[in-house]
Formats: sequence, C-alpha cells, structure tokens
Amino acid sequence: MINGSKVLDHSIRWAMVGGGKGSQIGYIHRSAALRDNNFQLVAGAFDVNPERGIEFAKELGVAPDRAYPDYKTMFAEEKKRPDGIEAVSIATPNSLHYEVCRAALEAGLHVVCEKPLCFTSEQAEELVKLAEEKHRVVGVTYGYSGHQMIQQARQMIKNGDLGEIRVINMSFAFGGYYYKIEETNPAAKWRFDPKKAGPSFALGDVGTHPLFLIEAMIPDLQIRNLMCTKRSFVEGRELEDNAFVIMNLKGSEHVQDNAQVYCWASSINCGARHDHVVRIVGSKASIEWDDERPNQLLYEIEGQPRQVLERGYGYLYPAARLEDRIGGGHAEGLFEAWANLYRRFAIAMDHADHSEYIDFWYPDVKAGANGVKWIEKCVESADDGAKWVDFD
Amino acid sequence: MINGSKVLDHSIRWAMVGGGKGSQIGYIHRSAALRDNNFQLVAGAFDVNPERGIEFAKELGVAPDRAYPDYKTMFAEEKKRPDGIEAVSIATPNSLHYEVCRAALEAGLHVVCEKPLCFTSEQAEELVKLAEEKHRVVGVTYGYSGHQMIQQARQMIKNGDLGEIRVINMSFAFGGYYYKIEETNPAAKWRFDPKKAGPSFALGDVGTHPLFLIEAMIPDLQIRNLMCTKRSFVEGRELEDNAFVIMNLKGSEHVQDNAQVYCWASSINCGARHDHVVRIVGSKASIEWDDERPNQLLYEIEGQPRQVLERGYGYLYPAARLEDRIGGGHAEGLFEAWANLYRRFAIAMDHADHSEYIDFWYPDVKAGANGVKWIEKCVESADDGAKWVDFD
Amino acid sequence: MINGSKVLDHSIRWAMVGGGKGSQIGYIHRSAALRDNNFQLVAGAFDVNPERGIEFAKELGVAPDRAYPDYKTMFAEEKKRPDGIEAVSIATPNSLHYEVCRAALEAGLHVVCEKPLCFTSEQAEELVKLAEEKHRVVGVTYGYSGHQMIQQARQMIKNGDLGEIRVINMSFAFGGYYYKIEETNPAAKWRFDPKKAGPSFALGDVGTHPLFLIEAMIPDLQIRNLMCTKRSFVEGRELEDNAFVIMNLKGSEHVQDNAQVYCWASSINCGARHDHVVRIVGSKASIEWDDERPNQLLYEIEGQPRQVLERGYGYLYPAARLEDRIGGGHAEGLFEAWANLYRRFAIAMDHADHSEYIDFWYPDVKAGANGVKWIEKCVESADDGAKWVDFD
Amino acid sequence: MINGSKVLDHSIRWAMVGGGKGSQIGYIHRSAALRDNNFQLVAGAFDVNPERGIEFAKELGVAPDRAYPDYKTMFAEEKKRPDGIEAVSIATPNSLHYEVCRAALEAGLHVVCEKPLCFTSEQAEELVKLAEEKHRVVGVTYGYSGHQMIQQARQMIKNGDLGEIRVINMSFAFGGYYYKIEETNPAAKWRFDPKKAGPSFALGDVGTHPLFLIEAMIPDLQIRNLMCTKRSFVEGRELEDNAFVIMNLKGSEHVQDNAQVYCWASSINCGARHDHVVRIVGSKASIEWDDERPNQLLYEIEGQPRQVLERGYGYLYPAARLEDRIGGGHAEGLFEAWANLYRRFAIAMDHADHSEYIDFWYPDVKAGANGVKWIEKCVESADDGAKWVDFD
Repeated sequence: MINGSKVLDHSIRWAMVGGGKGSQIGYIHRSAALRDNNFQLVAGAFDVNPERGIEFAKELGVAPDRAYPDYKTMFAEEKKRPDGIEAVSIATPNSLHYEVCRAALEAGLHVVCEKPLCFTSEQAEELVKLAEEKHRVVGVTYGYSGHQMIQQARQMIKNGDLGEIRVINMSFAFGGYYYKIEETNPAAKWRFDPKKAGPSFALGDVGTHPLFLIEAMIPDLQIRNLMCTKRSFVEGRELEDNAFVIMNLKGSEHVQDNAQVYCWASSINCGARHDHVVRIVGSKASIEWDDERPNQLLYEIEGQPRQVLERGYGYLYPAARLEDRIGGGHAEGLFEAWANLYRRFAIAMDHADHSEYIDFWYPDVKAGANGVKWIEKCVESADDGAKWVDFD
Repeated sequence: MINGSKVLDHSIRWAMVGGGKGSQIGYIHRSAALRDNNFQLVAGAFDVNPERGIEFAKELGVAPDRAYPDYKTMFAEEKKRPDGIEAVSIATPNSLHYEVCRAALEAGLHVVCEKPLCFTSEQAEELVKLAEEKHRVVGVTYGYSGHQMIQQARQMIKNGDLGEIRVINMSFAFGGYYYKIEETNPAAKWRFDPKKAGPSFALGDVGTHPLFLIEAMIPDLQIRNLMCTKRSFVEGRELEDNAFVIMNLKGSEHVQDNAQVYCWASSINCGARHDHVVRIVGSKASIEWDDERPNQLLYEIEGQPRQVLERGYGYLYPAARLEDRIGGGHAEGLFEAWANLYRRFAIAMDHADHSEYIDFWYPDVKAGANGVKWIEKCVESADDGAKWVDFD
Repeated sequence: MINGSKVLDHSIRWAMVGGGKGSQIGYIHRSAALRDNNFQLVAGAFDVNPERGIEFAKELGVAPDRAYPDYKTMFAEEKKRPDGIEAVSIATPNSLHYEVCRAALEAGLHVVCEKPLCFTSEQAEELVKLAEEKHRVVGVTYGYSGHQMIQQARQMIKNGDLGEIRVINMSFAFGGYYYKIEETNPAAKWRFDPKKAGPSFALGDVGTHPLFLIEAMIPDLQIRNLMCTKRSFVEGRELEDNAFVIMNLKGSEHVQDNAQVYCWASSINCGARHDHVVRIVGSKASIEWDDERPNQLLYEIEGQPRQVLERGYGYLYPAARLEDRIGGGHAEGLFEAWANLYRRFAIAMDHADHSEYIDFWYPDVKAGANGVKWIEKCVESADDGAKWVDFD
Repeated sequence: MINGSKVLDHSIRWAMVGGGKGSQIGYIHRSAALRDNNFQLVAGAFDVNPERGIEFAKELGVAPDRAYPDYKTMFAEEKKRPDGIEAVSIATPNSLHYEVCRAALEAGLHVVCEKPLCFTSEQAEELVKLAEEKHRVVGVTYGYSGHQMIQQARQMIKNGDLGEIRVINMSFAFGGYYYKIEETNPAAKWRFDPKKAGPSFALGDVGTHPLFLIEAMIPDLQIRNLMCTKRSFVEGRELEDNAFVIMNLKGSEHVQDNAQVYCWASSINCGARHDHVVRIVGSKASIEWDDERPNQLLYEIEGQPRQVLERGYGYLYPAARLEDRIGGGHAEGLFEAWANLYRRFAIAMDHADHSEYIDFWYPDVKAGANGVKWIEKCVESADDGAKWVDFD
C-alpha cells in the first residue's frame, strides 16, 4: 500500500494558474498533488483579481509574495529564484489552456493541464513538439483513468485475458443539461459558447473521458475511421448536447481488425447520474467498468459465472495494487484517482531528465493531442451528414 | 388479478404447426396458450415424422386422429369438421413461416406466428393484406413485450411522464456465439444459413426484439432514416454475428423530431447473458427496462431520486396491473409474458368479427411486417458501406 | 430441458379442495400441477357455495357432476368410481388443513397441502404416521424451494463447496402490514386471528419459508436449541407482526457444531418487497439467494472474486439443470418453481407404491411437521421472555 | 461545496502519537486532518524507534526537533513553546489509547482517538469527566459516520420521514479471518490477544461501527437491554470471531418503545467484503445504507416505488450537502468521510472555549464511552449464556 509514502526523495516545487477560492477543479488538483508530499505548493496565479489571489494564497500557506497577478509574471519571477517552481498546473477556462501551456513549456516547466489541452490539432502538435524539445512532462488530467481498476483492465488486456478485442460499448451520458440551464447557471453558460469551449460540448467535455479510458486500457488502440452524429436537443444551443460516434479500429496484437467502438456522449440523459460505463468485449471474455462504482470491475468469461473484481484484493495484477491506499472493501473515490495520476506525473517528471521509463504510462501530451484530434474528426463527420472519416 | 379467469366465455379451438416433442419454442407456446383456458389444444401437425406426431399428441391429450402429417392436411381436414380449429400457431423453422401463415389465413384461421413473419417486405405486405381481407388476427410472438412493465412504460409515455422522447439506447447482445458454435451445435447451424434464416442473423433474430419493445412502448413511433454497420467477427459466417444501427425518428406527439435510437445487436458479447436493455430518454425523465429483471422498471426524473417501479404494485397504471397473476414482490418470468400475449391474442381474435377494439394493442401483422422491413433497410445500409437509408 | 415432457407415462387424476374462482393460491396450484400434463384436473370441491363451484368447474373443463359441495362428499363419491381421483390439493383456510389432510389420507389419496400443515405438533405427528401407514405422499407447498438455484445450493453444500457451515443469516421481511390493514382488507383479517391462523403470524406465515429453504439446501440440518423474540408493532394485534429467532445447530457432516442461524420474519418492514434472503456462510465460501432474483445465486469464495451463478447454464450441477424450462438468461419465476415442486410430487406419488427413491427430495410431510414444531418452539421461547429452548 | 475552504480562520497546531511510516491508520488520519488546512502537522511521536521517527518527520515536512521519542516528552516539550501543539491524534495500539488520551487531556490538548477509546467503562467515565473538566474535545474516529448520507439519514429521522422507528437490522461482517490468519499475519495477531485488544474482537473492532452509525442517525437512541451470543468458529482463539446482539430500545420521540435492533458482527463471513449495512425500519418508511456504496441511501416508503438517494444532489437536506467536495454522481470515498469528521473536530475544538454549538454533532468522548460500555454489556450477556442484560 502507498500509505502516503513519497515516491520521490524530494517534493517538486509546484504552482497553479487558476483554481482560486471556490473553484471545484482547483480543489481537486491541490488535493491530488499534495496528498503524498510529492508536490509542494509554493506559488500561484490563482485569481484574475490579484488581491483575492493573495488572500487565498495565505489560506493555502503560500507566501503572499509568490501569489502573482498573472501567469506571465509568475513564470518570469519564479525563474529568477534559486528555489523557483518546477511544475505548474493549469486550471483556467479552456480557452487559455493552449497559451499557458506553451508559455510554461517555454519557461522550462513541467505542466499539468485540464483537458482539452487546446482547441486545434495544430496547436496540439505544437505542444507535443515543444514538450519533446524541452524534454518536459505534460500531464493531462483525465482523472477517471487514475482508478486502480483501470490499471487492472489494462493488465488483463495486455495479458490476453479477454482474447482479441472485438467490440467496445461505452458512454458518458449525464442529464443535468436537459433544459436551458445556461440561462440561469453561469457555470454552464461558457460550455455552449464555441469561443470559450471550443468546437464541441458533449464530445469534447464528456466524450473524451471514455475515449481516454479505452486508450489507457488498450495500449495499442488505433482508430481507423469514424462516423459521428450530433445535435442539440435543447433549442438555441450553439454546441451539441448529445452525440454518438462509431469507430472502426485497426488490427493489432490485442485488437481484431475492424473491431468496433460505440460511444454515446450526452448531457441530456434525464435522471442519469454519470452513466459513464465502458464495456470491452473480447473473443474470450468481457470486462465492464462504471465510474459510479469505481472499485469494481465486472469480468465475464463466456461459459463461466460472472465475476466481480474488487479493488485492493490479492487476486488482482500487481500493477493494480500498487496505488492501493486503504485496503479492499473500503471505498476509494475520485480524489484517490486524481492523486494516483499526480503520483505518476511526479514519477514522470522525475524521470524526464534521466532515462525512458519502461512501460510506464500516464495521460501525457500525446493523449491530450489525440483527444483534440478526435473531437475535430467527429465534428467533421457530423457536419458532413454523419459520413465516415478516416482518422489518420 | 387474473388468477386464471378466462377472458372469453368459451375456449378457442387451437392447433399447432411444428413445436413437437423436445421443442423449446413449442413448449412455451403451449404453456402460454393453455394457461388460462382461453385456448384449447385440439389438433396439430406437430412433427415431420407423422408417427412421432401422433405419439406426442397423445401425451398432450390431443385425439390421435387430429394429429396430422402436415399443415395442409390439417387445414383441409379441420375445415370439414363442425368443431374444427379456429386458430393455429406456427412454430416451424423460419423459412416456412410465410407459406404456412398464408395458407392458414386462406383457410380462414387466426394465426400466431414466430418472428420473423417472413423474409421479404413483399411477402409481409401480402400477409398484411390477406389478414385484412380475411379479417383474421395474426399475432407475432415478440414475447418480451408481454411483460407488465412494458405496459407500464407505454402508459407513462402516453401520459407524458417522460416529456418528449429524445434518445433511445438499446441492446440485445448475448455471448453464446462467440466461437464457431455452428460446427458442433446443429441448433445454431441454420441461423447462419441465409436460406433458412433469411438475410440476417443478429439483426433479424436478436435486434428485432428491442425494436418491437420500443414500438410497444411508444405508440406513435416512426423511423425516418437509419444507418447500419454489421459484420461477422467469427470467420467464415455467411450472416452477421454483430450489428449496430442508428435511427432518426419522425416528430410526433410523444417524440421530438429527429430523436435518435442507438441499437446494438450481438451474439458475440462474451460473458453477457441477454444484455437486452432499453433506455428511453425524454425531456423530463427516463425509463429503463432489462429483460433479465423484467419485474422492475427504472424511472429517473431529472433532479429527483431514481425510482424503481415494481410489477404488481398499486402505484402503477391500471393497464400495467391488468395481467398481474401473483402479486407484487413475487417473480414473474417469461412464461407469464407469453401468456399475457396469448391472452391478448384471444381477445383480439374474439373481437375480430365484431367491432374495433379501442386502444387495444398486441404484436400484430403490421408489427411483424415492420420488423421484416427494418431488417431489409438495415441490410441495405450496411451493404452500402453504412450509408443512411430512408425508412419509407 | 423439460420442455413440458411428462415425467410419468400417465396423468395422475387430481382434484382440489378450495381454490375457487378468484383465489390466487388456487390459480398457482392449477398452473403448477397442469403445466406438464403430469396431473389432470378431474374433480373439485372448489367453493363453499356449490353453485359457484359448478360454474367454476365448467370454466376449468371439469365435468359438472364432479364438482362437489364439500370435500367429504368428494372423497366418498370419487372412491366409488373406477376413474376416481388419486390425489388432492388442499387450498382452504389454514384452520381446515388438518382435517382435510387427514380425511384425504384415510381415503387413500395423495395430498398436496398448503403450509402450515396443521396447528399443533400432535396433529402433525398424527399426519406423519398416517401418511406412513397409508403409504401416501403428502407434499407441502413451500413454493420457493422449487427454484432451480435452491437445487444448485443443495448440491454445492453436499459437495463441500462451502466447507463446513458456520453461520446462516436469513430473512423474510415484507412491509405491507405496517398499519392496521386488517381493518379494511378482509384477506388480511384472518391472519391475525389465532383461531384461523394458528398461534403465530410472522413466524408461521412468513418465517417458515426461509426455514424450509435451509432445510432444502442442507440435507443434514438439525436444530439444537433456539431463542425467539416477537411482538406486534401495530397496536391491537393478537398475533405478532415481527419476530426474530436465533438457532444453534447440531454438528454434522456439512455443519460445524453450534453453527448459528439468525432469522428475521416480519410484515412491517416498510417499503421492502419480500426481503426474502438466505446467506449461508461456510468455512471456505458463502452463498446467497434472494427470492426476488431467483435465477441467480451469489457464490463468494474467500480470497477470490465474487461470482454470480445463473440458472440454466452449463457450469451448474446437473441436478440444478434438470428442471430448466427456457434456457439460461431468460427469467423464470415463481410459477415455474411451483411447477417444479408438482413435478417432484408426481414422481414421489408414482414411486410411493414401489421402492424408495434414492436421494430424491421434496417438501414432504416431515418437512411440514417440522415447520409446525418450529413455530411452537419459537412461541414457547418468546412467551417465556426470549429464553433458550431445546428443539428436541 | 467545501472545495477546501477552511472552516477556521487559522490552522490548529496538531501532532500525532503513533501512525509512523507504513501505518495505514496514520495515513488516513493525516489525509483527513490536512485535507482542508484546518490542521497543520507540526510535531509527532510517530515511532517507537526515535531515529525512524525523525526520518519520517522530514518526509512529512515536520521539523526534526519536533519529532519526539515518545508522547510524554512531546506533551512536556510542546507545552514550553509559544507555538506548541493544540491537538493530538492517537494512532497507537488499542492498549495505549487510555493512557495517552488521559495524558493529552491533562496537558490541555484536544484529542482525536481511534476507537476503542479504552478497555473499561471506568476508564471511559474518567475520560468523559476529564474532558469536561478540561473543556477539551475528544473526537473518536468512527470514520464511516463522516459520510454525507449518514447526515442525510439523521435529518430524515429527525424530520419524521420514517415515522417512528421499529426495527433496525444491521451488520458488519467481513470474511478475512475465516482461518487462523493470526499464525502468519502479525497485523492480525494482536486482535485475538485480550491484553492488546481488550475483551472482544468481533464486537469491539467490528460491531461498534454500525452501533455508532445508528447513534449518529438517531439522536435520541437509548438501549434498554440486550442479549448477545458470541463464539470463535476458528479453533484456538481467545476472543470471538463472530457475534450476534439483539437490543430493545427505549421509546422516544423518534423511536417506538421496545423497538428492536439486530446486529451481526463477524470476521468469518467468507467471501464478503464488508457487509456493513444498516437498515432502519420506521412506521412509514425505511432507509438502508451500505459502506461499500457510501454515496447512496435507499429510501423505501411503503406503497411507493423504492428511491435511491445520491450524495451531492439538490433534493437532499442542506445538512447532507454541507460537506460535498466534488458534486453528485462523482464517487467520494472513505477518505472524504474521515476528512468530514476532522472538519467537525476542528469546528468543535474551535468552539470549545466559547459557547455551546447548537445541534452540532460528531463522535465525541461520550460516544466513545458508550461503545466501551456496549462491549462490556455484550460480553456480560454472552458469558452468562446469552441472557438479557439491562443496559443502564
């Protein structure tokens, strides 16, 4: 078990851009990063209002003189210090992700960024290239992928427990935006504004989550082509509130050629909570995972009784027990999943100046870029009457 | 509660074609028809082997001289009797459905037929026309639609409890044909032979079930267009073992225009039992039904706690309690669902010579014809590279 | 699969006492007995009102002259006929069970009786003795025990899959009598009247069901002693609406000495449906069964993933597949469970004149007598301030 | 939502006794206390090995000179500092709880202590008295009670949503100690040694958890009398591995007189994970909570569909939303439950020198003392042949 043992012999000096007082996403970033002392919060440009930012810094135990009015100042000032920041997390509105990420990389910082990484594939490729040149880590917070049972799924697929993958049925379909919530709820408003949210809502904000889950579970996953149908069921929305995507996969070691993926992304699925479920069907067995019961993984071998695997138990693969914090039977939640990601980000950052880490994975800049590309391709297909579009 | 009370003041004189000794489908037909004495089994062409047919007739309490060698003889001989049969159920291989059904209608008999009713829309339209001309009932055994909670769903939609329907996500995806079972299991072999099974397996044999469920639940459901992708994941099969269909619906009283339906039909969903689930998402609430827990119906109103409706309870719509046989809490199963259909067939047959029955529904000849057309349209789309095809 | 194949080469001539028009219990008896043609309904004393009885006989296809005004007349008249009844089912109020059962045995008839068999152990012992002398079968309709997964549980325990049994936690706790329902609902009234219901309600009418389930699952179950606490939570009831029993078991091949059973029987468990659940904990593994999902059996081996066994699948013990009617995945319900019992009653009756049937079990007269004794012992304990009472 | 906003305007200076490197319980204390900056870890007697303690302090960011060799030294040295500790958490073996807790109170410190608080009622009463005299807070870490849905349950009962409480059925029954695990697993060994674990294992270590849950849910819960049966099913254990308790409650505003509680505590429930479930049955409705799905609460009103309440949603009582950290649908886990308790401890400590806090609850010293007394009474009953014992 982890039990909060640090994975590094030091703590990475870390700052945030955005995520100020009252920000839900800022809180989960801090909870995750600080959980095991692998990161130390030493600076921040938390708030567009500098005074509020300083107040908040004090509450967090950050020295007031390291609470900066904006990210540019922070990057510049911190560079001058011998104990300046080494890594930064970006918890700003989507439309700023790209410029802050680029600036951070150029300042020689490791980055943790909310998805979507940026709005276009061109931007994404630039960031990929820049990260490589600078030899810096960019971690993307696909938080659900930090759950231990995702790691178990990955190991099972790698070990051939499912046989060759044939079909994937997945969804992330919640219900809260079933009416024009953006008229009264400001937190919802920007999500339907293309300038602030990018070219998509349901696909970009919702659908990319299960997409990354299957990328995490299936190391050699490659999309051949896809078709997408999307629309807004609530009148007057500029971006879709519901979408469906079908993908054909390329054959590979663990995937039968032209395996199919069905993906439902929705915000108008009335009465559902998340309905964020991934079912992977292989030629021998299937697995199924649901983010609302993240400590379980269904394992169904044809011709045998259905099995329910539980987080923290001895029968799991070692990789799935590495990040156990409280023992099987106890409920871990989304905060632990994020903490697991940050733990991996710390390891990746620590290794960035040394050698390649064999078989170590985390949602990296390429994963972020892939998500951006997927949204583009889906939008392209949908806008052309749900035609089939090659992915490459 | 029904408690076996007859709905008619007499018993309909009834025969079977096929469904001989050891036939699973024959058994469920008899269990359903005879359950409440609305039908009386008086004759049959049970078996291609006449002697075996006579033996079986005795076991069933049918007079040996009314155990016929084939359906033609039966229809001809029974016509001569004053107490001849009034209705016949067809439990033969699919490829005979059409000709037996036509012959029965021409002989002036009511018919109960296994789905698919026939192989082509032309045949289907002929049967629809013939049934109308002869003023005879053709009931199609979409057995799952007989469950009481389907009736509850229908009433809820009719009463606007869901608001306007926007999305339907449904599947029937079992796993048993994940390997080349047809090489060793004769009961599976014909299903992949187009001559015996028609133009489709996964769509025709499996996918038509959830299709009829939503037709039953949504009285004014109309498909505008659809796209289908299908293939066989097990090598060497002539018919698909897996398919996916997306449909756009026409707007109507209960359906938002261009509402979408996602339908996964599969026989290679390893480890699943039925995975026969229909979720209907409206503008106010959703419902979800699973044939493996048929006595329950999930009812999820956005912003309120999820509800689980249970068969047999007083809070259901009266129509959903009409066919209660054992009281809430007790498990009813598929046999009761079939018995409910046969009860409705009996009512429909009884009324056929009198007036129209207001708001009375059962899976009728048009439902059967619609299923055949749906298969054709799906195959057309899939064979043309998953293009969109208009339904009308 | 059974598929309705008769297990006998003839049909047992069968009658009912009680179970007239509108009777729920009469309906389930007939549905079960007639399901596979092992019984043939030829006579009945269905109703205290003779004319109504004759009308109902006609509806059932029973000759009017064999619809008798009372059981005594029926037993006498049928005895004179060469084709007289061979077996009778008793579906009268509880207070008549004993006298009708005794009369039927004395008339040389096989008997199927609702539980409780009678009101006192003395009566029960007399019936046990009489059944032995007359070499007649008395089947008691503990309907839930007919589910196939009970058979699976029995085989698992016999084969030592659970190790030695240590703890059993069970309940039958519904909620419908949470208020004084007997004031308005006549069907509930007699249940709280000791003259009509016997010395107990919650224990006798409800608690005996899980008791028989564990007797069915554990062939060598023997109670050493027990304590019971019972009361009525709704004021003014003569009989208890809630009870709890703890039992110590004698050691045996499959049971660790002083294994404990916890049994909650209730009719005031608000909002529950049946809550009829049996969990059996062994030294290696546990199983759990719930009558609301009768097609499943949980199987939990310590240190391994939880398993869900499903009715009708090939991995079950052969005895658990013997009575399969529709194949795995499909929902069977309580009517099939009863039909399975009647099938076994038919076999038992057929064998009664021949040899002992090796390892064949059904809820017999001794099971019925044991239930009566258990109620007595529980009442004795509860009335003495929940003291411990020896069972023998 | 909390979002990590501090509830105090300062951070309480806090230390730990025990909970050194590799300690699971130490980790959860730190994760909980530090989560929202209400506490600040400034000192510790983490380890019996002083050097290891200093190393670990460094890893945690604690100044090495405040890493003490033992609790006595720490309490003495910290008292001399102007910035000395204000509160201490005790994460030592059970046998030290009493003496450390007493010493901390005498040193004027607030205390957070693992359950059991101590081994005897005499000790417990002394601690209750001492805490009152010193006006210090003693928080007891009944961690599960920190889940938000427990708060919801409490509000529902207070508001009369269940009517009067009649029956409670609860369990905490895991399976891991089904064999003599203590022979090979040192972490399990002390649990069966009365000198280290106190007079009970299953009751004390396991059963007290659901006991406190119902105390938390039902503000006016009072036990009248109880009976207990306990034993070890694994041979050679000095303390019980399985126990059952029946309690009668005193009547009160929310509880019907002589309401009954059934409590199963076990460590030999093979294959179960926690099976930590509390069902509370009232005269109108029931609720049910399971620690393995802590974000849900079943709500079953008799005569209405079952409801599933979800953490974080707007239909909950405000008190149940106060500690929401991530929004409904997302999974929170045990770490959040503990963090909620520490948040309440912080509030209680802050208020200790001021006024009484109206209607504020947390597991306090009286709750801890009540648990100790309950164990004593259970042991007394069980040792006297499961006799009934008055609680007061």
